[in-house]
Amino acid sequence: MSDESPTDDIMEATYRALCRHGYADVTMEDIAAESEKSKSAFHYHYDSKHALLLAFLDDLLESFTARLDAVEGETPRDRLLGILDAVLESSAESPNREFKTAVLEMKAQGPYDEAFRARLDDFDRALRDRFAAVLAAGVDSGDFRADLDAEETADFLVTVCNGAQTRSVAVGRSTERTRRTLERYVESNVLATDSFAEAER
Amino acid sequence: MSDESPTDDIMEATYRALCRHGYADVTMEDIAAESEKSKSAFHYHYDSKHALLLAFLDDLLESFTARLDAVEGETPRDRLLGILDAVLESSAESPNREFKTAVLEMKAQGPYDEAFRARLDDFDRALRDRFAAVLAAGVDSGDFRADLDAEETADFLVTVCNGAQTRSVAVGRSTERTRRTLERYVESNVLATDSFAEAER
Repeated sequence: MSDESPTDDIMEATYRALCRHGYADVTMEDIAAESEKSKSAFHYHYDSKHALLLAFLDDLLESFTARLDAVEGETPRDRLLGILDAVLESSAESPNREFKTAVLEMKAQGPYDEAFRARLDDFDRALRDRFAAVLAAGVDSGDFRADLDAEETADFLVTVCNGAQTRSVAVGRSTERTRRTLERYVESNVLATDSFAEAER
Repeated sequence: MSDESPTDDIMEATYRALCRHGYADVTMEDIAAESEKSKSAFHYHYDSKHALLLAFLDDLLESFTARLDAVEGETPRDRLLGILDAVLESSAESPNREFKTAVLEMKAQGPYDEAFRARLDDFDRALRDRFAAVLAAGVDSGDFRADLDAEETADFLVTVCNGAQTRSVAVGRSTERTRRTLERYVESNVLATDSFAEAER
């Protein structure tokens, strides 16, 4: 994908409009107002707010998976914690609180909108797959417990990340606290040696 | 509180209207349409949709805490799992999917509405306090690990419950799976003896 895609400006305008107006209230006019493009250029690309928001979710998923795939680390443990950072640190950026709120509103569309739901499934699966891959790699390398259920643990970590994001919006609780608790969870439940966990006690 | 409070019918009508129309779209007229009361009786009690929804959240919090406080169990472990059941089983009832969705929409109001936010804080704290109390009791009785951080663990469990509820709405994932994973978490991370966890391996 080119960095100069004709829709990049539209995606950025959508981001800003969602932050400013929220998902429920945002209109095509609000999004056009955030853009340098003419309204006719807008309607040339997207014929409804719904189509535009779906394209926005596709774009967001692409950035999200790129961010997850860019996580580096010497060991499976480092890569696992790197994924947690990628998910929970971005949620902790306070300038993004409005955007996280719009994302939570969009999650609430899952039951009512099949096209939204398909994208929400993609996000959920993208994160779960990355967790599962690094967990399985850690089991294979002997860094993680031989009896670790990589799929179940990956699924649990996705649930915890969702919970941290929801509480961050609903009650303003810092996702950084969950990040720290999860680091201890990894030390005591995922790593093959529990020397670290023992040292903490 | 009397079982025949004049507002009980209004609360039930609000519940049905939220299930039918969702939080963002529901109107006072929708709620009145679900009620046997006259519209004027409605406006006698509540002068706006906002005031009515706040009263509804207060009512919901009262039921929620009553449900948590009704949890029984011989041991701290049983009571802890009983709280998880109370939170996650109710979320798994499929007829309630519409309501869970409305609740998620209301959570997304946290950043924008101080009065909503105060109620969301109350829900969060009510659950966290119940978890913390049973965890502390289990540490005192020797059922749970002596080194358990009751406050941190309680907070983590609230995050996990929020995540299970969010994923249930967004991607239709059963909260029952989280319930089972949390039971294993309790066995391996909370209980003083890890004989159960060892037997599972």
